[in-house]
Amino acid sequence: RPAPSHKESWQHMFVQSIDNNSISNHLKEITKEPHVAGTAENFKTAEYVEYTFKAYGLDAHHKDYDVLLTYPLHRLLVLTQPDHEPIKFSLKEKAVAGDPYSNRSNIIPTFHAYAPSGNASAEVVYANYGRREDFQKLAQLGLKVEGAIVIAKYAKIYRGDIVENAAQAGAVAVVIYSDPLDYGNNATQGYYPSSQWLPPSGVQRGSVFRGIGDPQTPGWASESGAERLSVDDPAAQLPRIPSMPISAEDALPILRSLGGPVAPIEWQGGLELSEYKLGRGPGRLDLSYVANQTVTPIRNVFATIVGSQEPDRLVLLGNHRDAWTFGAVDPNSGTATLLELARGFGKLMEQGWRPHRSIVLCSWDAEEYSMIGSTEWVEQNIDVLDASAVAYMNVDCAVAGPGFNAAASPQLDDLLIEITKQVTDPDDDDQSLYESWVVSSNKSNPFIDRLGGGGSDFAAFLQHAGVPSTDIFFAADYPVYHSTFDNYNWMTKFGDPLFHRHVAVTSVWGLLALRLADDEILPMKYEAYAKELHSYALEINSEFLSSNAPESVSIAPLFSSIKGLQASTHQLAQEVEALKQEGMQMQSGLSSGILYRRRGLNDRLLRAERAFLDSDGLSGASWYKHLVYGRVANNNYGSLSFPGIWDAFHQATESSNDTANTAKWAAVQHEIFRCARVITRASLVLQGKIT
Amino acid sequence: RPAPSHKESWQHMFVQSIDNNSISNHLKEITKEPHVAGTAENFKTAEYVEYTFKAYGLDAHHKDYDVLLTYPLHRLLVLTQPDHEPIKFSLKEKAVAGDPYSNRSNIIPTFHAYAPSGNASAEVVYANYGRREDFQKLAQLGLKVEGAIVIAKYAKIYRGDIVENAAQAGAVAVVIYSDPLDYGNNATQGYYPSSQWLPPSGVQRGSVFRGIGDPQTPGWASESGAERLSVDDPAAQLPRIPSMPISAEDALPILRSLGGPVAPIEWQGGLELSEYKLGRGPGRLDLSYVANQTVTPIRNVFATIVGSQEPDRLVLLGNHRDAWTFGAVDPNSGTATLLELARGFGKLMEQGWRPHRSIVLCSWDAEEYSMIGSTEWVEQNIDVLDASAVAYMNVDCAVAGPGFNAAASPQLDDLLIEITKQVTDPDDDDQSLYESWVVSSNKSNPFIDRLGGGGSDFAAFLQHAGVPSTDIFFAADYPVYHSTFDNYNWMTKFGDPLFHRHVAVTSVWGLLALRLADDEILPMKYEAYAKELHSYALEINSEFLSSNAPESVSIAPLFSSIKGLQASTHQLAQEVEALKQEGMQMQSGLSSGILYRRRGLNDRLLRAERAFLDSDGLSGASWYKHLVYGRVANNNYGSLSFPGIWDAFHQATESSNDTANTAKWAAVQHEIFRCARVITRASLVLQGKIT
Ligand SMILES: [Ca+2]
Ligand SMILES: [Ca+2]
Ligand SMILES: [Zn+2]
Ligand SMILES: [Zn+2]
Ligand SMILES: [Zn+2]
Ligand SMILES: [Zn+2]
Repeated sequence: RPAPSHKESWQHMFVQSIDNNSISNHLKEITKEPHVAGTAENFKTAEYVEYTFKAYGLDAHHKDYDVLLTYPLHRLLVLTQPDHEPIKFSLKEKAVAGDPYSNRSNIIPTFHAYAPSGNASAEVVYANYGRREDFQKLAQLGLKVEGAIVIAKYAKIYRGDIVENAAQAGAVAVVIYSDPLDYGNNATQGYYPSSQWLPPSGVQRGSVFRGIGDPQTPGWASESGAERLSVDDPAAQLPRIPSMPISAEDALPILRSLGGPVAPIEWQGGLELSEYKLGRGPGRLDLSYVANQTVTPIRNVFATIVGSQEPDRLVLLGNHRDAWTFGAVDPNSGTATLLELARGFGKLMEQGWRPHRSIVLCSWDAEEYSMIGSTEWVEQNIDVLDASAVAYMNVDCAVAGPGFNAAASPQLDDLLIEITKQVTDPDDDDQSLYESWVVSSNKSNPFIDRLGGGGSDFAAFLQHAGVPSTDIFFAADYPVYHSTFDNYNWMTKFGDPLFHRHVAVTSVWGLLALRLADDEILPMKYEAYAKELHSYALEINSEFLSSNAPESVSIAPLFSSIKGLQASTHQLAQEVEALKQEGMQMQSGLSSGILYRRRGLNDRLLRAERAFLDSDGLSGASWYKHLVYGRVANNNYGSLSFPGIWDAFHQATESSNDTANTAKWAAVQHEIFRCARVITRASLVLQGKIT
Repeated sequence: RPAPSHKESWQHMFVQSIDNNSISNHLKEITKEPHVAGTAENFKTAEYVEYTFKAYGLDAHHKDYDVLLTYPLHRLLVLTQPDHEPIKFSLKEKAVAGDPYSNRSNIIPTFHAYAPSGNASAEVVYANYGRREDFQKLAQLGLKVEGAIVIAKYAKIYRGDIVENAAQAGAVAVVIYSDPLDYGNNATQGYYPSSQWLPPSGVQRGSVFRGIGDPQTPGWASESGAERLSVDDPAAQLPRIPSMPISAEDALPILRSLGGPVAPIEWQGGLELSEYKLGRGPGRLDLSYVANQTVTPIRNVFATIVGSQEPDRLVLLGNHRDAWTFGAVDPNSGTATLLELARGFGKLMEQGWRPHRSIVLCSWDAEEYSMIGSTEWVEQNIDVLDASAVAYMNVDCAVAGPGFNAAASPQLDDLLIEITKQVTDPDDDDQSLYESWVVSSNKSNPFIDRLGGGGSDFAAFLQHAGVPSTDIFFAADYPVYHSTFDNYNWMTKFGDPLFHRHVAVTSVWGLLALRLADDEILPMKYEAYAKELHSYALEINSEFLSSNAPESVSIAPLFSSIKGLQASTHQLAQEVEALKQEGMQMQSGLSSGILYRRRGLNDRLLRAERAFLDSDGLSGASWYKHLVYGRVANNNYGSLSFPGIWDAFHQATESSNDTANTAKWAAVQHEIFRCARVITRASLVLQGKIT
């Protein structure tokens, strides 16, 4: 083994400095009060974060925006049915023994952000998970959704898409609940506080807005004085019908009140109910909701460590700070981690370390409403980020239990793997995080997810600005998500009692930053990107072959562009190797020539991801400029690649009439060409040559 | 005076090397045959240029595209009128004595590129210059254009807009001629060959396509295998009614055949006609036209001088090579200049010179058809140019007579001024080019035009890719434009008998390249940009005040953004000064820190122009991404700033009904906000800081 370089010593020193107690203390402090975006409590967390950054010796500042938020003013839900007394639901989560947090009075009532004010009184239909296929099934079975109130289960798709699907089917309102089958381990282990599972009164809050950022400023920053769309403008994309989240406890009598056909076997859930029926009715709901929709200040907080050599190259790390309740998992396990990171970097700086490139720590506000803080900031700084951003590394829920997970832009895969080999598995000292990750992936290589869905603050960076991104966390789903029970008590009992998993996230996150800030040549391998794209193209190919796609529709342009990208990545890898060799052979100082060549090569590496952006963006969702990773219509949590191709494909396969069909398959071909073109443009960027 | 630096010596050596005979010889050679895009003759000019680049010691290569071009296959125009024999026009330009070029049989017949094939037989209406206001006037006067054939005069607007305006008014075909008032000095000095003026049989060819680039590939490169729109696709934007250019000689009997009201006094022209009447009829035309619309290879040729320090920073110089006939002015006066530039750089290289940044000489094809060669290349290389292009300097018609003219992105104004002070006026050895330029500008400062219109190959660079650009030339309009008489004989008699003006263009063009390639800090001053934007905002303000704009429409966001830009430019100027001082004080070699800071500062300077781009582009013309300089609807030759604001304003002031009016003024406000936002983004880029 070669003697550790100077850089490796700094990395080692950083990892050694991370302290589980420090993280735990921060988490307890930040989560002592509920802190929804726009509230005084959340401004206090902003001040705490900014103060703490400064206390650790970093330069810190904040940036406020005025954005449209909503809060519940009035909620009413009443069930009526023949031969029963009406039931007026409390719409409250119940305090549980031994958890003082759950007894607090300043927790925001359960509601759906951006649900419009409105009343509805109608018979109820059960729509399973509220997916498009669920509504198609209801139509097949002859159930009329038009004019009804839909009851649907959380779990499979974004709640805003449930509401939109229901609205498209003609529903007048929606209630969505958390079934014990999905959030209670099917009622086999009891509930929090005796186990980790969501109590029967637990409710998942959340946004039902299907756009991103402030709904009134799509594509630009909500600075004071900025242009603001009217909330009625279709471009604001706000939901059209009222909706509410409810508990399993409240869902039970509603589902019991339904007659009609028995629901399909795969629609049955975990409530104490002999069988789930579809309705509609005879149970009917009276729903009334009044929202306070109001333009409200929010605050992003930043710490910057200015790069000693290339201050204008930015390595960005971010986490949101606002929470629906206490946010011990979501998002403040990440915030505590961010503050520990700041402490670690502060320690290095005390010892004289400065990064080669700049490092920026970002604490976002109003993510829960629709990634607003990060989106407004990216929209405002888009040109600077376009020129300067090396990578964005997100941590939202840092820890919700055991099991490391990662999602990344593929050129960062190798770096993630290298780094996890240097970090100890927090649940088994005898192995590396990498080793446990491989095991949990059930493959010979660790599973790395992609960032195609919405879901957190990486969206604006990757999908709008083309900045290579990562997202890391322990445990994927957790049952008390967006409920009162996501608090410090739950975390210390079930999420991470020893805070060792938090330490592991801090280590991985910090090492990612150190490598991206200090490596002479950026640790990005586009070979992996090309390989990944090839697998997506194969997937499309096989799906097309088993569909009614006309033979004239050709995937060849896509394969051909990927082949070109592969060739470019191989050539680039050789160039990188040559430049590394040359740098190592230089004994005394570096020539200006080699510095400029490194800078030029790094520029190509960081800009190749930008080439996947197209100014027209996704068809029908033009804010999403990235043609490889972005939102798929009607499944905002989905993480598919090439969303434009898949959306066009699904529309074509669903179309019945012949003329429309020809046009729709032509649209598929157009989307294939568009994707092929951005891939070819990425090849040219990697080559750094004009044609 | 300080001793000339090393760089200044190279610049001096370059200027000394430029030779008028060498330019003249190149021009004679390139223009010996007519060479329309897509023809064998034009491929020969490509080979000649590539060969010559290499002969001068430069690396050269070419890049071909397959693009939609059109050629005339059949043309018929017959005038019939009561009591007259029908006149079948020859549609030919006549040879003139002493000009062997004018007698050649391989000159392309007179036609309009992209005019659709078609027949029309209808009474004729005279529509002056074919502007929107001209058709409005006809409507006021009760003249029915619907179903008629329009005769209009060249001179004020783009010929494609004349045809479109006529089509919108319901015309079935259009003929456009060159009136002696506009192209013959009102017949006071005779015609070529006895004077410079367009002979009565002279015809202006040209494109009537209103888009840019290959009509079938809007926004992407016409590589072989690329997606191609159908020619019928509305997105291809091809003209809808047939049209033809004709001579003054042929226009005369047509105009004589018209009865109806006498045309307004300002519509009267220079033909031997007591008064121009409006028609319609009794004269009627039978027009028949068949085009060969065909996908044809074209060739761009490049020479590259790789930068010794920053090879990935590109200083681009371009000129088109294709001509409607011989092209002695348009464009090959520029081509001869480009080749002389190559000779000059080759000489410097022989002496050991290498530029700090790369210099690329570009010889474009198919500009005449709609800037196709440059547009396809920019579309293909868009991401590399976005990252790497420092500036693009265009020369189309280098010389058509005396009088220096320049247009530029405002941050290059100062550089242009500095350089013209170093070049001798070709028409008066006793003064600098700068001095004669000031005099001809009739102001205390030289007049520098802006690049808002279409017109030449800078369009894709500036308006689509946001690359700071210049365009320089001697003499603005010239009478034999796009006719047979634009040949070497005309040039040596009237355009530039001594080729000294060519020498001056070569000197300015070359010095621009040398400064932009070699200056440590890019010679770009954004103060001038801010000042210019402020004058545009004032112009909008005064126009709004004298219009029916509601008081609620506010220009304040625009003024506020410009104020922000001014502040940023002042701060940047200080930063530039400080860095220059620091560089001068360093005695032995430069630190890596200062190199990176220079690079970073230069990146901000070259990228600030990109910030004026908006991914949505101009409303209704989304290819045009630049919101300050771009095409104004219905006047493609216009050179207004903020085209989106002006277009929306004109639509609002023209709207009559109240509801539409509110929406139209809202659109004006939206455009003001959009322009303000890109200006603010440019400020952030210049600051190089995140918010
Ligand atoms: Ca926004
Ligand atoms: Ca094109
Ligand atoms: Zn979160
Ligand atoms: Zn959340
Ligand atoms: Zn030209
Ligand atoms: Zn021309």
